Amino acid sequence: MAKELPSRSEDYSLWYNELVKKADLAEHSDVRGCMVIKPYGYSIWEKMQQALDKMFKDTGHVNAYFPLFVPKSYLAKEASHVEGFAKECAIVTHYRLKNAPDGSGVIVDPDAQLEEELIVRPTSETIIWNTYKKWIQSYRDLPILVNQWANVVRWEMRTRLFLRTAEFLWQEGHTAHVSAQDAVQETLQMLDVYADFAENFLALPVIKGKKSEGEKFPGAIDTYCIEAMMQDGKALQAGTSHFLGQNFAKAFDVQFTSKEGKLDYVWGTSWGVSTRLMGALIMAHSDDDGLVLPPKLAPIHVVIVPIFKTEDELNKISQKVQEISSELRKQGFAVKFDNRDTHKPGFKFAEWELKGVPVRLAIGPRDMENGTVEVARRDTKEKQVMKLDQVASQIPVLLDEIQKNIYQKALAFRASVSTKVETYEEFKRILDEKGGFISAHWDGTPQTEAAIKEETKATIRCIPLDAKEEAGKCMYSGKPSSKRVLFARAY
Amino acid sequence: MAKELPSRSEDYSLWYNELVKKADLAEHSDVRGCMVIKPYGYSIWEKMQQALDKMFKDTGHVNAYFPLFVPKSYLAKEASHVEGFAKECAIVTHYRLKNAPDGSGVIVDPDAQLEEELIVRPTSETIIWNTYKKWIQSYRDLPILVNQWANVVRWEMRTRLFLRTAEFLWQEGHTAHVSAQDAVQETLQMLDVYADFAENFLALPVIKGKKSEGEKFPGAIDTYCIEAMMQDGKALQAGTSHFLGQNFAKAFDVQFTSKEGKLDYVWGTSWGVSTRLMGALIMAHSDDDGLVLPPKLAPIHVVIVPIFKTEDELNKISQKVQEISSELRKQGFAVKFDNRDTHKPGFKFAEWELKGVPVRLAIGPRDMENGTVEVARRDTKEKQVMKLDQVASQIPVLLDEIQKNIYQKALAFRASVSTKVETYEEFKRILDEKGGFISAHWDGTPQTEAAIKEETKATIRCIPLDAKEEAGKCMYSGKPSSKRVLFARAY
Repeated sequence: MAKELPSRSEDYSLWYNELVKKADLAEHSDVRGCMVIKPYGYSIWEKMQQALDKMFKDTGHVNAYFPLFVPKSYLAKEASHVEGFAKECAIVTHYRLKNAPDGSGVIVDPDAQLEEELIVRPTSETIIWNTYKKWIQSYRDLPILVNQWANVVRWEMRTRLFLRTAEFLWQEGHTAHVSAQDAVQETLQMLDVYADFAENFLALPVIKGKKSEGEKFPGAIDTYCIEAMMQDGKALQAGTSHFLGQNFAKAFDVQFTSKEGKLDYVWGTSWGVSTRLMGALIMAHSDDDGLVLPPKLAPIHVVIVPIFKTEDELNKISQKVQEISSELRKQGFAVKFDNRDTHKPGFKFAEWELKGVPVRLAIGPRDMENGTVEVARRDTKEKQVMKLDQVASQIPVLLDEIQKNIYQKALAFRASVSTKVETYEEFKRILDEKGGFISAHWDGTPQTEAAIKEETKATIRCIPLDAKEEAGKCMYSGKPSSKRVLFARAY
Repeated sequence: MAKELPSRSEDYSLWYNELVKKADLAEHSDVRGCMVIKPYGYSIWEKMQQALDKMFKDTGHVNAYFPLFVPKSYLAKEASHVEGFAKECAIVTHYRLKNAPDGSGVIVDPDAQLEEELIVRPTSETIIWNTYKKWIQSYRDLPILVNQWANVVRWEMRTRLFLRTAEFLWQEGHTAHVSAQDAVQETLQMLDVYADFAENFLALPVIKGKKSEGEKFPGAIDTYCIEAMMQDGKALQAGTSHFLGQNFAKAFDVQFTSKEGKLDYVWGTSWGVSTRLMGALIMAHSDDDGLVLPPKLAPIHVVIVPIFKTEDELNKISQKVQEISSELRKQGFAVKFDNRDTHKPGFKFAEWELKGVPVRLAIGPRDMENGTVEVARRDTKEKQVMKLDQVASQIPVLLDEIQKNIYQKALAFRASVSTKVETYEEFKRILDEKGGFISAHWDGTPQTEAAIKEETKATIRCIPLDAKEEAGKCMYSGKPSSKRVLFARAY
């Protein structure tokens, strides 16, 4: 097969890059750090968007759209926010090109300089809170539950397809509330939505937790996250939900009159997931033969490959395939009949495996005689012979089983690389030997967190929401600790 | 009513601006030329997107995503293209902010200047054809039928909500073909898709035609368009589809090996519609009381307003409303029950009229006794009494009738302001007296076109595809002409 991948054990990073390219998911563009999301990759992203969008709407949110550009002075209004984003932003300074006087081509027209520079949004808190100021006067205007699907830009120096790119696609929810309690409730509700989506669509078990002070969003009071485990033992932050307190309301002077007639600043949240989820999806489930897609996000659920020598054979098979396809499509499944006569079945099998189609049916003249079809599932590579008249009823059951199996496999893997440690020595040894999530006591200080990061490259992924109160000693400083936190090296 | 609008006859332009704001569709942001699309406006845009996206997919297209930034040198590769866009582009020159040494705030870090400036895409032909070069080697790689939903930026000096903004949302299709014939066929197919969408969803009759040389897209061989008529007698270009020939393939050296083994440049098309359609929708159908939405694009199809004095009355009505709503929702209609006790029915009526909800049901204690409901349609303002048990079967019929009536009304209006003229005097008189589409003979020269535009501000909207061959004399120059073209003042 022409499209062979390097194996994961050989070079996980190369395997990932090659898989993303060979499965036609994305590629680097000639514009530094920006990717092209190819049609097959984009169709998976579209399925993610549809599922998430429905979950947002089911929880009372509506979509809107805010400007791409943030005036420099807006970004600067919240101190830690600008600190967090200043070092990596794309800045628009001019609005016109002109022909070079020497005829050498087009140049930026120096007469068309903007009075104030505009930042291409790295996130939209500032521009949105500046707008909310106009929308909010009274408690009657609250809550505001708005989401935006958009592109954002963060000028990353080291990029990686889907995982870290200068431009990426995401959704950002921005809500405004009358009380801290309401805002915290919203923050946690959206964390639950993300966890639900990760587990039930991405088939990806996640740990819900709170970020340490050092890892929280610039401008947030608290950042909550879902953390997932990749097959190489590194963690990946798959979504974040921030309780903003009154920080942005104060920065943009957004006040409301309460039911009791008192003036107070509005409470805020923001929450987002991005095309990074594509990276998580790929790295969590795929194997050395290519993508493994959970059926709920697969653009094609079932591919049907005819095995034929003559045109007559193909015609007969095609007729049968029509019937099966139509029955499956009626149930909402996407079916592809790969009847190309330019490629052999073996080539097609490999190609659809590379692309992660959950179920493959192969049907030849002998199957036609016996009224059967060969069914191969992508996740386990198992094959079975199925009666043709059972396809319509059994394939949906199989797809459901595949969705569950992919989740269970990821869950088992995560369990196998999750370790409790008591000492820093053990911590470092486990980190190097098998990676994964390491649960350990930490004294709660940024100094210890920074020292561990410096020495091991492991970070505190989160303080799990379900962490038990438990007296212990910080593995690094020996100081007292009341809870374990989760460490890992991460993407 | 608090939200009263100026009337169309008084000040059409003010009426439009106020309507857009008061119906919660959009507002100006503090970022020059950029708008905020508010949730209600965005929900209409989402309905447009869904309908168009389905039509694109039904005609074999897939979505993808390309970078926001276009390197300056790419834009410059197609001569007329850069000429067309150079004067209005947002240019990224730096990638980092830093604290000012004097402590005055954040400034652009002069050390973080880009080697090559990046243009925020005004349209994506250049970045996409640069990518297609990598995707296309042989005729087997063709056609490529890709669409992108994206934001684009054109630094307009005079902006207007939805109609002309520095940033807007759109879709841009970019296809690549083996022959001129295939590309022209695609160009015209997408023009048909746009016309179909305009007429069947926007309820907006359009004229399909070809642009004159002076009005075509920078970089195209031919530009086709759909032109619509607004209530003030001005035309609005509602969508364009371009036959690009081999222009971009040549600029980016995109060649393919044909079936016969010959090397040739690829043939291209591009086509787009934007949030401008929101402007068209509003200006074509709305009246002095507010929006009039065609049911197929209405976020809420039916609003139900209870008429009550006591809580007991409201409870009884609510129960009945539950039943009706559930029956209508089952059929796919969006129903809003406005049971606020903070506003009177009259206020609610006015509010939902302003927002263009196609059908309003009002139900009070007497209706409950009689088993009836008052049905008001937004388009004609007609009211009727309907049996409650007929609501589920009759409202869908009514919505369908409203969709058709809105279209017929726009069609009749367009006919009333479409005039054939023979002389330039007549042309100028009609233009000033009633505006609309003026069908006239033109000698086909850019000089005449420019002179007429200069003198009257009217432009050639298009050469209609169904224009008859007809010997005549140019109304301006007296030179021979073989076809009438369509003039109008336009948005």
